Amino acid sequence: MSDIIEPRTLKGFRDYGPQEQLARQWMFAQIQTVFERFGFLPLSTPALEYKEILMGKYGDEERLVYSFKDNGDRDVALRYDLTVPLARYVAQNQGGLLYPFKRYQIAPVWRAENTQKGRLREFYQCDVDVVGTDAVLVDAEVIACMAMVLEALGVFEYEIRVNDRALLDAVYAAAGLDASEFVLVTRALDKLDKISALEAAENFESAGGSSLSGDFIRNYKQAIGEGALAIRNIQQKFPNASTERVEQLLELITQAGVHPEKLIFDPRIVRGLDYYSSTVFEIKLKHAREEVGSIAGGGRYDGLIDTFSTKPLSAMGGSLGVDRLYAYLESTGQLRQGLGAAVVALNVSERTQQRLAQVAAALRRSGVAVDMYYDTAKLDKQFKYAESKGARYALLLGEAEVAQGSVIVKDLAARTQEAVAERNLAEYVKAKVA
Amino acid sequence: MSDIIEPRTLKGFRDYGPQEQLARQWMFAQIQTVFERFGFLPLSTPALEYKEILMGKYGDEERLVYSFKDNGDRDVALRYDLTVPLARYVAQNQGGLLYPFKRYQIAPVWRAENTQKGRLREFYQCDVDVVGTDAVLVDAEVIACMAMVLEALGVFEYEIRVNDRALLDAVYAAAGLDASEFVLVTRALDKLDKISALEAAENFESAGGSSLSGDFIRNYKQAIGEGALAIRNIQQKFPNASTERVEQLLELITQAGVHPEKLIFDPRIVRGLDYYSSTVFEIKLKHAREEVGSIAGGGRYDGLIDTFSTKPLSAMGGSLGVDRLYAYLESTGQLRQGLGAAVVALNVSERTQQRLAQVAAALRRSGVAVDMYYDTAKLDKQFKYAESKGARYALLLGEAEVAQGSVIVKDLAARTQEAVAERNLAEYVKAKVA
Repeated sequence: MSDIIEPRTLKGFRDYGPQEQLARQWMFAQIQTVFERFGFLPLSTPALEYKEILMGKYGDEERLVYSFKDNGDRDVALRYDLTVPLARYVAQNQGGLLYPFKRYQIAPVWRAENTQKGRLREFYQCDVDVVGTDAVLVDAEVIACMAMVLEALGVFEYEIRVNDRALLDAVYAAAGLDASEFVLVTRALDKLDKISALEAAENFESAGGSSLSGDFIRNYKQAIGEGALAIRNIQQKFPNASTERVEQLLELITQAGVHPEKLIFDPRIVRGLDYYSSTVFEIKLKHAREEVGSIAGGGRYDGLIDTFSTKPLSAMGGSLGVDRLYAYLESTGQLRQGLGAAVVALNVSERTQQRLAQVAAALRRSGVAVDMYYDTAKLDKQFKYAESKGARYALLLGEAEVAQGSVIVKDLAARTQEAVAERNLAEYVKAKVA
Repeated sequence: MSDIIEPRTLKGFRDYGPQEQLARQWMFAQIQTVFERFGFLPLSTPALEYKEILMGKYGDEERLVYSFKDNGDRDVALRYDLTVPLARYVAQNQGGLLYPFKRYQIAPVWRAENTQKGRLREFYQCDVDVVGTDAVLVDAEVIACMAMVLEALGVFEYEIRVNDRALLDAVYAAAGLDASEFVLVTRALDKLDKISALEAAENFESAGGSSLSGDFIRNYKQAIGEGALAIRNIQQKFPNASTERVEQLLELITQAGVHPEKLIFDPRIVRGLDYYSSTVFEIKLKHAREEVGSIAGGGRYDGLIDTFSTKPLSAMGGSLGVDRLYAYLESTGQLRQGLGAAVVALNVSERTQQRLAQVAAALRRSGVAVDMYYDTAKLDKQFKYAESKGARYALLLGEAEVAQGSVIVKDLAARTQEAVAERNLAEYVKAKVA
């Protein structure tokens, strides 16, 4: 007929085969359980949004948004994160929601990333957000929730770095910087994990920034440090910049069950997106900081919903990048092995197929997962299929068994077998499988 | 700052709010359980594919595919169904799979449908497929699996219509039609639920079709009937067209647990897509046939994988359209009501917030879902929040309680309350909630 089309996936996109996807679904289930344990309820928003909804929110990264004209000539875009769609949803349904509005969403997002760094262009985000209050307790809960998710996934070696963008602004003000330069100084500080402070300051100045701010960028990282030291440094050097909220936050996160050793105040953390207004945080794996990058992050974005509504609403959220974590757990062999059906019904003869269909139906109705071999191939081949699929028992139903009203149950590991009366089969198998 | 952007979703796309999404997730979980009970394992494929992978598979409907050029100037398309990506996956990984390869996938697809009929442009499909065997037992299993899914969702009033496209071809041949017209005759028959047989025949003839085939189209529906009568009609009128496989199939579906009254042989069922080769089926709700349309369907597509590979592989699948079913169950009030956290920790005083965070953390670690009120608002308002969220218990932790090491547990329905020692709290609440 036609020529053969080469079967391939797009760069940055990948399939997850059965064993991989079982492990991934196990991860999603754990994450969902923890989210619900914190009182978050699910929300589903579309993959496609009007392009104008997404634009103007992501700063430099905006060029990575997948956008196109749809069949009706509308400018549309694939969602880039789950936060902006949430802000749109809340603004659209503002009058009908119960506040604080708490939702989780576990869904793919799309970014036209550079794939050379091994980054995926389609990946799942697992987000929780609280809309409608600026209580510091919320910021603590969101961060504690992310930590509990990691522990539910068997990841204990992580560190959480926390900062506050409002505190940063207060530090700038206390340092005498001009308010018109705050955003640009923040963007310059955000680059300090990739380029040196000298370079960042030079870039800032050669783009027209003041030398006062340039000097600030040059010295900040070195002078400020992290942890308790950084708090003292700020208190001494910028006494007008209050550290009270961030100290309260750190204390509450600890009370919410995060070990203090895993929690670091780091005034050099900025987070790239433009919409953050106060608390920001990121979580990295302790032994794979550079390779894996941050596996979770988020912050407070008190101004974002205002872009869709005249009624302001505070909001705070966290996001876990599950595919990055999946890749890491895969590389360390920590992935949960999934299991298929424990029982495979073999296909002994065409003449007993109807009976086989009946037996399988009865077992499934009683809650037992039963795979079936569909062709009357040689039994050797069928046993091999059952073993390759990880089954523990094979059912055999020949004409003799049908005549006797029984089924042979073969234990694939022990290589023993037993004839079981059909009426007792469900009980028997359920006891074995349990 | 900037102008306000109107918060809105695209036509044909919708949000699912918390209660809606809880009900939907309950549906997905039921569906997944039944799929796994039949021995299917999950597969995940990307939302975006090379456009050429999808094209040439869907016949007339191809114009509904969302396609565009990505940032790298590649022609890409949003997946239109889950079947073609599966065929691509199997061809791409052909040597490494265990056959028969059985997978399920529950994921959204995108079609630029006419929204005036209330059709969504983004909707979830729930698919099972078996690749690598043409055994009729497979066709029966896939159809029985779809039926069991419906029953797991509480839907018992459905009917399954089954046909065989290979049988149709045999009927055409027995009627003396020219093989070159088979595909066009099939497409004409596919339109008979929308236009009259006379009109379909006229369209066919005026597009250059022979009058022999035109007459066939004119008379087929009327002459052939359905059920046992149709089998007899075919046997008598077209003795060269064997009904053996379809009879065997109907028998096996019944043995697999589908009540015979729900199962109808209907030789007028064609299914639109070009890739079907043999068994085709569709499932409709008995009392909402026209309003809801078909809620599940599928068939055998033995030629599809060949478009990506020189090695042919038989395949059979079924697909459930969960959003159509969701809309129906919503309209009849049959949707499962979801539940949020049973317990809400109220926020009595800023001075006891740290303790509150500790108590909630301990409860959550012991498996209890605990929502929390984050602001120290008036207690009336907090109780109202707890009730609106459907919680059954509220926790209160004032300074007196902290001093005594206890927590007040208030039953929101009974309006009774009890002071419980903090060390017994998890036990106490778990017993209450269970």
